[in-house]
Amino acid sequence: NSHFDFTDNSHRRYNPLTDSWVLVSPHRAKRPWLGQQEAIAKPTEPEFDSKCYLCPGNARASGEVNPKYTSTLIFSNDFPAVKLEQPRLYEDDYHNSLKRRFMKTQSVEGNCFVLCFSPKHNLTLPLLPLDDVVNVVEAWKKLYVDLGKEAKQNGKPYKYIQIFENKGSAMGCSNPHPHGQAWCCSTVPSEVEKEFKSFAKYTSEHSGNLLADYVALERKERERIVLENDSFVVVVPYWAVWPFETLVVSKAHLSSIAEFNDKQQRDLASIVKKLTTKYDNLFETSFPYSMGLHQAPLNATQEEKNTAWFHMHFYPPLLRSATVRKFLVGFELLGEPQRDLTAEQAAKRLVDLDGDVHYAEKL
Amino acid sequence: NSHFDFTDNSHRRYNPLTDSWVLVSPHRAKRPWLGQQEAIAKPTEPEFDSKCYLCPGNARASGEVNPKYTSTLIFSNDFPAVKLEQPRLYEDDYHNSLKRRFMKTQSVEGNCFVLCFSPKHNLTLPLLPLDDVVNVVEAWKKLYVDLGKEAKQNGKPYKYIQIFENKGSAMGCSNPHPHGQAWCCSTVPSEVEKEFKSFAKYTSEHSGNLLADYVALERKERERIVLENDSFVVVVPYWAVWPFETLVVSKAHLSSIAEFNDKQQRDLASIVKKLTTKYDNLFETSFPYSMGLHQAPLNATQEEKNTAWFHMHFYPPLLRSATVRKFLVGFELLGEPQRDLTAEQAAKRLVDLDGDVHYAEKL
Ligand SMILES: O=P(O)(O)O[C@H]1O[C@H](CO)[C@@H](O)[C@H](O)[C@H]1O
Ligand SMILES: O=P(O)(O)O[C@H]1O[C@H](CO)[C@@H](O)[C@H](O)[C@H]1O
Repeated sequence: NSHFDFTDNSHRRYNPLTDSWVLVSPHRAKRPWLGQQEAIAKPTEPEFDSKCYLCPGNARASGEVNPKYTSTLIFSNDFPAVKLEQPRLYEDDYHNSLKRRFMKTQSVEGNCFVLCFSPKHNLTLPLLPLDDVVNVVEAWKKLYVDLGKEAKQNGKPYKYIQIFENKGSAMGCSNPHPHGQAWCCSTVPSEVEKEFKSFAKYTSEHSGNLLADYVALERKERERIVLENDSFVVVVPYWAVWPFETLVVSKAHLSSIAEFNDKQQRDLASIVKKLTTKYDNLFETSFPYSMGLHQAPLNATQEEKNTAWFHMHFYPPLLRSATVRKFLVGFELLGEPQRDLTAEQAAKRLVDLDGDVHYAEKL
Repeated sequence: NSHFDFTDNSHRRYNPLTDSWVLVSPHRAKRPWLGQQEAIAKPTEPEFDSKCYLCPGNARASGEVNPKYTSTLIFSNDFPAVKLEQPRLYEDDYHNSLKRRFMKTQSVEGNCFVLCFSPKHNLTLPLLPLDDVVNVVEAWKKLYVDLGKEAKQNGKPYKYIQIFENKGSAMGCSNPHPHGQAWCCSTVPSEVEKEFKSFAKYTSEHSGNLLADYVALERKERERIVLENDSFVVVVPYWAVWPFETLVVSKAHLSSIAEFNDKQQRDLASIVKKLTTKYDNLFETSFPYSMGLHQAPLNATQEEKNTAWFHMHFYPPLLRSATVRKFLVGFELLGEPQRDLTAEQAAKRLVDLDGDVHYAEKL
């Protein structure tokens, strides 16, 4: 009568943040791979690329010329997904009740920004000096605070700012120049809304705070913790979907980056630099991912602040090597997300990489 | 005082099947693309490839040799995501109440199958003769019926069978030989479960059936209908996420493929062949996608049969050309799925392609 073996037996794990499940098939990592190979990012990008529309002094698609910036640079996206002004949508135009049921629509206004992390074309978060990563955190805070003011004082349609980075061609990033984005919408995006609902439900059922309790448990178990400093913990969540997915959680209750003090800003920069260094070192490649910040809506009410808890998600697609990624396709799209190694195995791989030195700096 | 313009103004649309939203930014299709280019599938695959593990007479990874099949072939996946037997999982092992909250786990048993659509290595659904596509539909039905019997008569842990196809390297498919898969699990996968919930809720609120009412509305509007025959309708759903996503819905209430008569089987084969031909013709390439069948669980109760409604989803990633796809990444993963053209625009593109002849057959 043998025991259930989490490293060999299939099971599904529940994600309490988004009320969803993931199928874990740990024995499946052994299958051979004959499919698509990812391109390896050129390790020889120049520090300045005259054809890059994000490098200082170059022209963008709009014709506008970038300033000769020396730290970070924020500008409005030339092809924004949402716009500041558009005609009003009258949903009541639907006199037909079937249309009301099946063509439920909301207008979304807002603004999209690009944030260059550095003037240097060939750097990435792990390769930037710590002070420069602190500048990036500073820029995130500035965006959050300034857009909140714009909403409050000038009536701009800004409710939630989604700050994120797509890195690497595997994650649809079209330019290696280190940069992220911020899409600021008049609606709270669905993934964020789901989390707020779960947080509120948790508090009403158990008192306490979902992420606080979760982090406390993980710090006791120590099976999935990848990094930790005074202010933050990085964990491969029990319910991770992407092979080396991580969650960066603040230890104290900070509802948004606006509440960070200098030490917390530096601690976030430091842990992000260390995490992305581990990622790059894992397969000795510039590790692709999508990552982003989740926090309180802009101009949050006290209740919204009580509910929100600052954290970041990293969703990296690579599975076995620099060129072999996980595809979340057929079964995943139609049935349920599926992964081929356990969260514990992924965490151990990341923990076991020793040192904070980036592999490229050892060459 | 201008009017809201669905082809130029950003909005979100509600998906009543999965209770989720998609952000539509129709003006965004104009932005230039500098990112990853997809590989074009070799149009010159041989009819037989001695290195293909799906071709007749060749050996698979397990060492087993494929029969010299002449129609379809079903065999157990050599690297299944779920297995028939494994030790029992006792969730009650968690005496710690935090563990019970955050490490909610279910054992999943089952079996995974591969279904070769044809012995010919270089064909795909649109290029197969109609009779051969009918054989594929027949094989899907056989899988559904046989596994249901295995569950009922031999106690196999089969609750739901997810039949799907990943096509093209962009969708993680590792072999161009025409084939699909079927993962049969002891649990109902989450995406399917969500739909059942929505269907049941709809019926209790409005009586009638969600998909029946939706199809009736679309047939009246005719703005998003791509194809139609006696038994099925193909529509770009109002809430489509993937650029040329479609939904194939049965007109009559068929809870599963087991209820299809000969005419319905042929009509499904025919409409799938026509749809995939349109897909290939759109960018004159072998169009990648993930697609799959949604239907009642195996050995469904009468209530489950009343709730379920046979349909298929096609999720194709290409956006602008044979080499430029949509990436559902940063904002999509952290915020909300986003698309760059409206469902109506996508439907019109597919409708406007005239004729049923595949572009390769015109060469
Ligand atoms: O089983 P395959 O075709 O090798 O694998 C493909 O389809 C599976 C089911 O959607 C996915 O889990 C894999 O990530 C994908 O590469
Ligand atoms: O804005 P970018 O970097 O050109 O575009 C990338 O990120 C966006 C936000 O996640 C996605 O909608 C696009 O599909 C992706 O290619």
